[in-house]
Amino acid sequence: MALGLRASPPVVLLLLSLLGLAAAGKLLVVPVDGSHWLSMREVVDLLRQRGHEVVVVAPEVTLHIKPSKNFVMKMYSVPYTKEDLKKEFQAFFHFSFEQGPFLERLVKAYQGIKRITDFGVTSCEQLLQNKELVTYLEDSKFDAILTDPVQLCGAILAKHLSLPAVYFLRGLHCGLDFEATQCPRPPSYVPRGFTQFTDHMAFLQRVKNLLYDIPDSFICDFAFDPFSKLASEFLQQDVTVQDLLRQASVWLLKLDFVHDYPRPLMPNIIPIGGVNCAHKKLPQEFEAMVNASGEHGIVVFSLGSMVSEIPMKKAMEIAEGLGKVPQMVLWRYTGKAPPNLPKNVKLVKWLPQNDLLAHPKTRAFITHGGSHGVYEGICNAVPMVLMPLFGDQMDNAKRVESRGAGLTLNILEMTSNDISNALKAVINDKKYKENIQRLSDLHLDRPIHPLDLAVHWVEFVMRHKGAPHLRPAAHDLNWVQYHSLDVIAFLAAITLLFLFISFKCCLCCCRCCFCKKGRTGKATKAKSH
Amino acid sequence: MALGLRASPPVVLLLLSLLGLAAAGKLLVVPVDGSHWLSMREVVDLLRQRGHEVVVVAPEVTLHIKPSKNFVMKMYSVPYTKEDLKKEFQAFFHFSFEQGPFLERLVKAYQGIKRITDFGVTSCEQLLQNKELVTYLEDSKFDAILTDPVQLCGAILAKHLSLPAVYFLRGLHCGLDFEATQCPRPPSYVPRGFTQFTDHMAFLQRVKNLLYDIPDSFICDFAFDPFSKLASEFLQQDVTVQDLLRQASVWLLKLDFVHDYPRPLMPNIIPIGGVNCAHKKLPQEFEAMVNASGEHGIVVFSLGSMVSEIPMKKAMEIAEGLGKVPQMVLWRYTGKAPPNLPKNVKLVKWLPQNDLLAHPKTRAFITHGGSHGVYEGICNAVPMVLMPLFGDQMDNAKRVESRGAGLTLNILEMTSNDISNALKAVINDKKYKENIQRLSDLHLDRPIHPLDLAVHWVEFVMRHKGAPHLRPAAHDLNWVQYHSLDVIAFLAAITLLFLFISFKCCLCCCRCCFCKKGRTGKATKAKSH
Repeated sequence: MALGLRASPPVVLLLLSLLGLAAAGKLLVVPVDGSHWLSMREVVDLLRQRGHEVVVVAPEVTLHIKPSKNFVMKMYSVPYTKEDLKKEFQAFFHFSFEQGPFLERLVKAYQGIKRITDFGVTSCEQLLQNKELVTYLEDSKFDAILTDPVQLCGAILAKHLSLPAVYFLRGLHCGLDFEATQCPRPPSYVPRGFTQFTDHMAFLQRVKNLLYDIPDSFICDFAFDPFSKLASEFLQQDVTVQDLLRQASVWLLKLDFVHDYPRPLMPNIIPIGGVNCAHKKLPQEFEAMVNASGEHGIVVFSLGSMVSEIPMKKAMEIAEGLGKVPQMVLWRYTGKAPPNLPKNVKLVKWLPQNDLLAHPKTRAFITHGGSHGVYEGICNAVPMVLMPLFGDQMDNAKRVESRGAGLTLNILEMTSNDISNALKAVINDKKYKENIQRLSDLHLDRPIHPLDLAVHWVEFVMRHKGAPHLRPAAHDLNWVQYHSLDVIAFLAAITLLFLFISFKCCLCCCRCCFCKKGRTGKATKAKSH
Repeated sequence: MALGLRASPPVVLLLLSLLGLAAAGKLLVVPVDGSHWLSMREVVDLLRQRGHEVVVVAPEVTLHIKPSKNFVMKMYSVPYTKEDLKKEFQAFFHFSFEQGPFLERLVKAYQGIKRITDFGVTSCEQLLQNKELVTYLEDSKFDAILTDPVQLCGAILAKHLSLPAVYFLRGLHCGLDFEATQCPRPPSYVPRGFTQFTDHMAFLQRVKNLLYDIPDSFICDFAFDPFSKLASEFLQQDVTVQDLLRQASVWLLKLDFVHDYPRPLMPNIIPIGGVNCAHKKLPQEFEAMVNASGEHGIVVFSLGSMVSEIPMKKAMEIAEGLGKVPQMVLWRYTGKAPPNLPKNVKLVKWLPQNDLLAHPKTRAFITHGGSHGVYEGICNAVPMVLMPLFGDQMDNAKRVESRGAGLTLNILEMTSNDISNALKAVINDKKYKENIQRLSDLHLDRPIHPLDLAVHWVEFVMRHKGAPHLRPAAHDLNWVQYHSLDVIAFLAAITLLFLFISFKCCLCCCRCCFCKKGRTGKATKAKSH
């Protein structure tokens, strides 16, 4: 049969790697800590399984990046402790639960992000100053680098080591990813980050969407410029943020159009939304818990791997709300248990979120709206109640809600009744299940799993030392040329010149005619005299 | 192993269809005759193999569309004979070999295309007037329609039958495909059709590229408007060409960035360049011929399935050129054999082009530069000598040449020496083989074969009754809104108003100050008096 005869590459690659025949390469991975690492780790694990040698470079102080048998981990020292890091993140997340005047919240958010960014910059500085490690990287003959450009340390190393780079990310602030890939994003239907707009905007929303690019550049400056300064010092040449970003051969973007709004893509942008949805077996203890839940099934509740505790008042409010539904609620929570914890709510320090969501007894998913969680909700067709906290979570929540697959709650203002009402609605109103099922069916109907697609493209870049054939010529044009402003100016000048000459000619002709007439008139007059 | 556990869909689908478990659907196919049909037929064959019921609607007079066990063929009568059709095509292709003043050639080309288009329009008219056939189509419960929108008859039927449509094509003239998919195509680096520009254009080329959109609309008018008139009459409503095009759920575009220049894509544009490169076994007689070719190997020569004979003078010149190379030349030619045919040239009425190109003894490929041939050259890494005749063939040839994988000859001006020199160059100068090998390696390193990808997306549209989640919201905006001109005008008006008010306020303040001063001055003056 044709499909078999052409032997789709995953099968061939699987067979080759089983036989140890796949050309194994050497990959450098410079990840970003936190939830960013979780889906990248799955790609790294699979690359290792396929016989590649993987070296992960990370600071010795991290939240999630841990040594593994699947890769060589090269650590470098940093001048802060895990407690410092945790404290900073905790303070930042705590702030999401605090009410206050808009401007005060804005300043606090700025300061929080600045402090977290500073950790990344300090860490990168330490890496680049670590001569032993840098020499080791220089001496290792890597085929490519896989990195998350939310922090540009990997990008700096890519430039220094002249390695083809694969960027693995959800997206960048300020449209930096669009600019770096030369990907058009008309403001008329591509909503900007943090606007919570859909792709169908009213006139004033379109005005706001266009204006949103202004504060964007402000955000970029403080989050990305420190890395360009580091790069310029380290590489001993002027290096801009765009120089670091544009070098990428392939962009693995965690997006999919069942969730994200359809918009132009460039050939080297590979959508891998749902990359984190590969299933494993549900651990025995959780299987037992779910089976004990009875006819009403369970609700999975997690505010993500980064939020470990929340203010007690809010926790009690949530607990009260959860007590009003008949489902058993599995709540991932590492903070102090609220004293009013109802019987149907079980607190766990960790839960296998994706595998729990896949269980047929799961009725709903309460999530903060991080992209990993949202894609797991979609993969497993579980309606969501979204409690976005910060970053792109508000936008993610809006997308799920706009597709009728969930309800969003304002974490600052919600009451226990809001929580129970939202939960009851997404569980009992069939339209939510129908909508998420439709999205899930569309999402899962794909020719290749996003994880395999990600692995394919990393291997592609390793095999071919990049992907120059996917690089648009737009990179070789400046802004004026790209927008054809020089051509338009030239054509306008030609047109004006033509009009001017035509006008002058007409004027000349008219004058000649009138002169002639004048002279004839005079001659006639003279004759008549 | 993860890749195995996730069981990539082609394998699952293969197993399911082997077990007869794949959900079989019913597909309507409205193809375009000529070489257009050849790659579509491969998709249709595979869809049939996967258990779907396929109904192909075609006029009873065609060049290439023949009944097959793989589909039900519904034919309708047309008021012309196969001889009429052949004669018209022959006249058109003959014209490609004729020299003459530019304007005369332009007029002849226009007339030729117009006459060929008229066949399509007449055929479509007959189909739509065939009540029995239309009733049959209305009664058959199709899941989707697969059609080539180069002729819009399938698109009209899709609208009439309210069927989700998959368009299968190389591209449309005048950027109609870009417009219909809302796909941006900056004129600064996306070369227009028929310009023979690469994606790196000098200033004056960029000027010309921008201006090329003007004659484009003229070409569109006469080639596409007759269909919109037919549609308006048949559907009893005003239907534009864009209405017919925009309805497509998915666009299967025969492009790949090893050949085509990188440019933006939309989510519902699926690149399937190389879809026609699936290999079969080389027939025994050809295997024997190739094996008898000796150490120098063979050259495959075909000007495509549509060009059967060429003027004798040109044929003799070509034969003379071919006689100067040591390779055996297999020439697909159905015309009268030139009397000077050298011993190393074998004329054949038909040849298995792709399978011959795959033979390790094949040294070069002489082609007219049709997209099928060029992709077969790339798939099989055979350097090319290109003799483009018309349409997109000049652009295709330019692309191959710009990538150092072949040489282009001007069919009107080339001498026998030019032919032999070009052949010797691409065979003996290693760079051509290296370049085409590099392109081939990049092209073949893909996660899924383009034929499987095409089948996946046709089935996707059949299963989900379309792909609305891939449709950009840009379709719901008018030209002014899409380009945010209303927003820019609004912001400009606000800014002007603000400046005006500020100016007025300043003026007012100044006046007040001056008046005060004036009054004070007067008062002082008065006092001093």
